[in-house]
Amino acid sequence: MSSTYGENLKLSIFGQSHGPAVGMTLDGIPAGLPVDFAELQAFLSRRAPGQNAWSTPRKEADAPEFLSGLLDGFTCGAPIAAVIRSSNTRSGDYADLTDCPRPGHADYTAQVKYGGFQDPRGGGHFSGRLTAPLCIAGGLCKQWLRAEGVEIHAHIYAIAAVKDLPFDDLHPQTEDIGTDFPVLDPAAGEKMRAAIAAAREQGDSVGGIVECAVTGLPAGLGEPMFGGMEGRLAQILYGIPAVKGVEFGAGFAAAAMLGSENNDDFTMADGQVRTCTNHCGGILGGISNGMPLIFRAAFKPTPSISRPQLSVSLSRGESRVLEVHGRHDPCIVPRAVPVAEAAAAIAIFDLFLGNTQTNRRK
Amino acid sequence: MSSTYGENLKLSIFGQSHGPAVGMTLDGIPAGLPVDFAELQAFLSRRAPGQNAWSTPRKEADAPEFLSGLLDGFTCGAPIAAVIRSSNTRSGDYADLTDCPRPGHADYTAQVKYGGFQDPRGGGHFSGRLTAPLCIAGGLCKQWLRAEGVEIHAHIYAIAAVKDLPFDDLHPQTEDIGTDFPVLDPAAGEKMRAAIAAAREQGDSVGGIVECAVTGLPAGLGEPMFGGMEGRLAQILYGIPAVKGVEFGAGFAAAAMLGSENNDDFTMADGQVRTCTNHCGGILGGISNGMPLIFRAAFKPTPSISRPQLSVSLSRGESRVLEVHGRHDPCIVPRAVPVAEAAAAIAIFDLFLGNTQTNRRK
Amino acid sequence: MSSTYGENLKLSIFGQSHGPAVGMTLDGIPAGLPVDFAELQAFLSRRAPGQNAWSTPRKEADAPEFLSGLLDGFTCGAPIAAVIRSSNTRSGDYADLTDCPRPGHADYTAQVKYGGFQDPRGGGHFSGRLTAPLCIAGGLCKQWLRAEGVEIHAHIYAIAAVKDLPFDDLHPQTEDIGTDFPVLDPAAGEKMRAAIAAAREQGDSVGGIVECAVTGLPAGLGEPMFGGMEGRLAQILYGIPAVKGVEFGAGFAAAAMLGSENNDDFTMADGQVRTCTNHCGGILGGISNGMPLIFRAAFKPTPSISRPQLSVSLSRGESRVLEVHGRHDPCIVPRAVPVAEAAAAIAIFDLFLGNTQTNRRK
Amino acid sequence: MSSTYGENLKLSIFGQSHGPAVGMTLDGIPAGLPVDFAELQAFLSRRAPGQNAWSTPRKEADAPEFLSGLLDGFTCGAPIAAVIRSSNTRSGDYADLTDCPRPGHADYTAQVKYGGFQDPRGGGHFSGRLTAPLCIAGGLCKQWLRAEGVEIHAHIYAIAAVKDLPFDDLHPQTEDIGTDFPVLDPAAGEKMRAAIAAAREQGDSVGGIVECAVTGLPAGLGEPMFGGMEGRLAQILYGIPAVKGVEFGAGFAAAAMLGSENNDDFTMADGQVRTCTNHCGGILGGISNGMPLIFRAAFKPTPSISRPQLSVSLSRGESRVLEVHGRHDPCIVPRAVPVAEAAAAIAIFDLFLGNTQTNRRK
Repeated sequence: MSSTYGENLKLSIFGQSHGPAVGMTLDGIPAGLPVDFAELQAFLSRRAPGQNAWSTPRKEADAPEFLSGLLDGFTCGAPIAAVIRSSNTRSGDYADLTDCPRPGHADYTAQVKYGGFQDPRGGGHFSGRLTAPLCIAGGLCKQWLRAEGVEIHAHIYAIAAVKDLPFDDLHPQTEDIGTDFPVLDPAAGEKMRAAIAAAREQGDSVGGIVECAVTGLPAGLGEPMFGGMEGRLAQILYGIPAVKGVEFGAGFAAAAMLGSENNDDFTMADGQVRTCTNHCGGILGGISNGMPLIFRAAFKPTPSISRPQLSVSLSRGESRVLEVHGRHDPCIVPRAVPVAEAAAAIAIFDLFLGNTQTNRRK
Repeated sequence: MSSTYGENLKLSIFGQSHGPAVGMTLDGIPAGLPVDFAELQAFLSRRAPGQNAWSTPRKEADAPEFLSGLLDGFTCGAPIAAVIRSSNTRSGDYADLTDCPRPGHADYTAQVKYGGFQDPRGGGHFSGRLTAPLCIAGGLCKQWLRAEGVEIHAHIYAIAAVKDLPFDDLHPQTEDIGTDFPVLDPAAGEKMRAAIAAAREQGDSVGGIVECAVTGLPAGLGEPMFGGMEGRLAQILYGIPAVKGVEFGAGFAAAAMLGSENNDDFTMADGQVRTCTNHCGGILGGISNGMPLIFRAAFKPTPSISRPQLSVSLSRGESRVLEVHGRHDPCIVPRAVPVAEAAAAIAIFDLFLGNTQTNRRK
Repeated sequence: MSSTYGENLKLSIFGQSHGPAVGMTLDGIPAGLPVDFAELQAFLSRRAPGQNAWSTPRKEADAPEFLSGLLDGFTCGAPIAAVIRSSNTRSGDYADLTDCPRPGHADYTAQVKYGGFQDPRGGGHFSGRLTAPLCIAGGLCKQWLRAEGVEIHAHIYAIAAVKDLPFDDLHPQTEDIGTDFPVLDPAAGEKMRAAIAAAREQGDSVGGIVECAVTGLPAGLGEPMFGGMEGRLAQILYGIPAVKGVEFGAGFAAAAMLGSENNDDFTMADGQVRTCTNHCGGILGGISNGMPLIFRAAFKPTPSISRPQLSVSLSRGESRVLEVHGRHDPCIVPRAVPVAEAAAAIAIFDLFLGNTQTNRRK
Repeated sequence: MSSTYGENLKLSIFGQSHGPAVGMTLDGIPAGLPVDFAELQAFLSRRAPGQNAWSTPRKEADAPEFLSGLLDGFTCGAPIAAVIRSSNTRSGDYADLTDCPRPGHADYTAQVKYGGFQDPRGGGHFSGRLTAPLCIAGGLCKQWLRAEGVEIHAHIYAIAAVKDLPFDDLHPQTEDIGTDFPVLDPAAGEKMRAAIAAAREQGDSVGGIVECAVTGLPAGLGEPMFGGMEGRLAQILYGIPAVKGVEFGAGFAAAAMLGSENNDDFTMADGQVRTCTNHCGGILGGISNGMPLIFRAAFKPTPSISRPQLSVSLSRGESRVLEVHGRHDPCIVPRAVPVAEAAAAIAIFDLFLGNTQTNRRK
């Protein structure tokens, strides 16, 4: 299945970039959970475009309309459904888009898969715009997780070759994250903005890495094997366009460590079992161990660039040069920070709902 | 759900390390597919322990018995079920195992989740032994994919700090992989074995990275968003114990590239649409583009080491020193190579079965 | 999960009776399928209220707006999403509805399950109005099945004690079904209308049975055990409010037959394997045999009646008399006929999409 | 998918009638649940053949071997797996079985679906023998439901034209069910046995109806629409071979009632909300209302009869007479009684596990 996620909740995301609306349904949510609409809107605004110098100048309100699932500000047990209307969709002629696929985009694979019936306008269903309804679902789950004591914070870990400070994986410094441009080290942030500006000037783009910390998780969440936290999180994170790598804790660096270095010794602290280090990123055997959950997701540079590129004419079966015009983010990583948080919130709330093991013992 | 995978096929894996058997059921497989038992056994032997100097000296035959799903060497439409009997399970006293969790293992998280009812012997359901039934399912899927022209080959990309040559991502040199110790560069292989031997001498362990190439894939496989190839593959790969990172194509390195570098230009070759580079690892928008699919999975060092480690006594709530005795792989990466191939085969065959889009057009 | 159906397609239905809209998302549909909007609207009108003397005088347009999944009149591979706006929702005071549950309705069970957070207005998510989006999905599936040669026709088999002619299960007389009031025998239809009118005059209601025939089905559709056609159809049919019984072929009557009577002998006709009788209703072992698929669904009488009934005050924990006012269908069976067709179309199209067995052999 | 059931638990059933074993895996069960093996064996013996005069003289022990999921008599969180070895499988020549399908069996539909690769011996995966592993899973769920105060009892409601007393749907007389031949009215039981004996003498068979009562259910279990108790139960019940009809409460009879008759008035009894009648069978809006859950499942007569029947030679495309020899139950209804209980137990325990709504409020 394509755009459906979840075991205990069922998230279904729909829409095309230039269609009348994007939206989502979220089934399986218990009744009686409150919704703070102002907080949700603030969260959605972190993802919305046109907010600042380093993102696309398009303006989209990203104001969701709830069609189902709420009553008087609380969930009512019916599936939640919300849509965001498209403000300015211009159909225009899009024949050329299906004939000459843009490098790095899903144009070609969609053409092969859907045989020319796909919606090519603005990337159709493959557009980053589909992360807006993901953020509706994720913004709600974040609120409900906070009520359980679980906080989710992400920052820009890297843009191009510039790295931010990493999270302290024992005590993530989540309060130090800048609000305007979410980094821990303002100086690194300055260099990142410069890298974005430089790419923009060249008609080019840059990628980056988002790092996320989830604190307040109880131990015992997640399932063995394919239901492990890593796998559940990775599946939804790879649903975000442009993600090409996901790692947990020490991640790829763990491969170069000795067991005696990488193993996290246990200790007692305030009557709680804790680990002395956190190379495992809070997950052992797919199950949370009560330490901060740490993951990083790598985003490739935005494929939309204005420099000439080589492509092919599918109808004529020959190479041609493609020049793409229009307004594009030279770097989507800043806007991807809340999207990664949203994805994590959905995956973790899904595990909460299905935690029959813990529920039984209560 | 825990140990169940798949959308169009349903794989269910069961067993505990010291239980009477491990096994799997695989439902949803079409009838009429042939099974080459000798080839399957050869594949399983690549994973089996006790084969050589760098793995555990335990001997386990890993000979599967098929209980359902086959008739006269072909699938018959009934769910496939196979078990591997445990040869030498010694119960012994295992009270201490639940009181003093081993660092890096799932002992503590299992204790919290299952409240002391988990099977602690040899890691129970969290043991690497559960990859044996995964390889039964994967070995079958590999055979059936080969009949569709799809080949899956993996090699040891890194052990400790030693790196093998990477795959040529346009023309993976799959025929150069050594059979005994699967690397592309024999000299690197020598250094890796030395690193393993050194760790073993110290009572320590090393991790590594497995790289896998899937060739012969048709374009158009996979679904948008959460059903993308990356997400489907990552979910099953994270089901392998010790995996802490998964990346596709250029992966984390893509984050540091410019869009103009990372985008793979299209070209025509022999009447086929191809890309000039393959930084996307054969996947655009979650869907295969017909180029080799390339991924890497990072394995942390085996947590079982014989050096003293710090842990806690859960019953007494105090720190203590833990010394683990027994026979352990100082490095599971060589044996993980076929496991990664198996996981990829299952995920890809699952996508093949569900490719209603392509099926319709035939 | 609650309002989600399907294995190969994923249908998610949302909305509350008096909410801003009801709607559905339908994921997993191949691209390139045409949509005949006029035909869809005509199908939806068969279910819509206010059409005639025997249904509720409310007027609702039931005009769907498609938000996703279509381009130029064809499916485009993105999930299909459609909503029907509510025309006249009056909030009013609904405190009394949650305190005094209506007999035969879901008021009490919703109150227990959702702890008072459910939407009680007009039955909320339990309202028959939710069959409108079911008919959007089903109307689409009907069109696509017709392109495969599969036709779905239902009629009113019984209302109160009045019975229509049954379908000839070898050659269902689907062309004889009246369009205004769908029965095979106009005289029976007259008596049924009289029974409805009599109930209405008494402030009472009547139930009935819908019989459905699916013709043109290929043999080999469906899966063994829990994936059988009967089980898949029954699950979706029981999703229609008021259904309390479902049977296939001879159904309950088969229980009183001898094996030699009930078994359907095979014969050859025009080079095709056919059965001489069709007591199995076109399904053997859960799999279609190429004969007409016949099922019946029993609908209880509309629970909304205007006669005084006994209920309880939940807040005071004491019995009280309840009188319900408002506009209600004295019989929903005529409007349930297209709903049963829609449900069947969804279940069968789902099986078509998943028929990997047949797809492979093509 | 075929032989997989469940949302919160995942049941997978495997095996062929004459294969080496039948079995099941059951994933998603919390750890710490006790297993009473003697009680389980007693339950399985109720289904096992060869117990008495009215069933097949074959002797099969139906003694399950547990391969996974248990430790020291408690569930341990790993998936439960159990197999029942086949004692006497005789391969023989079975070419004729695929050429001349038996009326009323799945032979023909399996041949079409699986293209001749199906296992035809004894019905293969479509055999009633597959209800043995269903009873393992169901027998376990019954034990765990009893610990929650939920009891499941079924009796033979009808065989051929002979009817037992129905359950009192307010106070099911579950203690009056005979153990040897489970009926409420011993006189009816006598007539049923006579009907079975008469059919056997004629080389014929008879069908019947099983009625089941579930008592002690809390109100609030089940989900709206497709997740309703009726639909979940019907799906698993139709997974039992020979079931052709399922109804709840008044079922088909409700179709002929007035709303004022069928609606179950509410009242207070001992401080509890109860209904004065129970035509809804304990389910309103798909959700349990705390009254006894009542359902009936209609079984067609065993298709295996020894009288000559008309069939076809598939290879020659012509009609022929078929005579089936061997040992067959002239009536499977007595043995189906525990199978219906097992199916109900699985469906209800699945709903218990997923009851996140109720779990949250605890």
